[in-house]
Amino acid sequence: MGDCIFCSIVNGDIPSKKVYENEYVFAFRDINPEAPVHIVIIPKKHIATIMDVDTSSNVSNELIKAAQHIAEKEGIEKSGFRLVNNCNEEGGQTVYHLHVHLLGGRNMKWPPG
Amino acid sequence: MGDCIFCSIVNGDIPSKKVYENEYVFAFRDINPEAPVHIVIIPKKHIATIMDVDTSSNVSNELIKAAQHIAEKEGIEKSGFRLVNNCNEEGGQTVYHLHVHLLGGRNMKWPPG
Repeated sequence: MGDCIFCSIVNGDIPSKKVYENEYVFAFRDINPEAPVHIVIIPKKHIATIMDVDTSSNVSNELIKAAQHIAEKEGIEKSGFRLVNNCNEEGGQTVYHLHVHLLGGRNMKWPPG
Repeated sequence: MGDCIFCSIVNGDIPSKKVYENEYVFAFRDINPEAPVHIVIIPKKHIATIMDVDTSSNVSNELIKAAQHIAEKEGIEKSGFRLVNNCNEEGGQTVYHLHVHLLGGRNMKWPPG
């Protein structure tokens, strides 16, 4: 997956503002933040979209566990936040390495885009 | 959880436009749709927010598995869709029974609310 920008971020070949990392997951601040807290959470393993997630694997659990941990670390677990996954073109996916946006620190509006 | 509107939908005490159901998950069309496809996916078990999900349980996997299945059933798995979870007040959560919005059938915009 040599051309994947998010794989390069995990590898450290592209710098990022890392906020969390464990064996399975990497998280960094979005370079175009849309909220005071805007973090991108990704599996280290290259998976293109949420449609490609093996739901018998630990990927879903590790992403949610990381989101819970990061929300607490950022102090927005009680005030609130929004998790967003864009799948394919109409969903607004621009990087084809699965990622979950965590946005908070302001009132999120409706509809969600 | 006698006063939970989503528990009442699962029980059938409140009618809904059901699109999917299995042992763990229930999904129905949002009563105020924000896209041609706008479905709400919930665990049958009452869990207040995503912060309350036990990531050693099957909840995360069952929600993602249902989202994949419903996206295929609606024929938007390739065109694309957005998954959204609102946690607590600033996230825009209005019903305190964990739910994931699946929106598609149009180009979703950015920012996501």
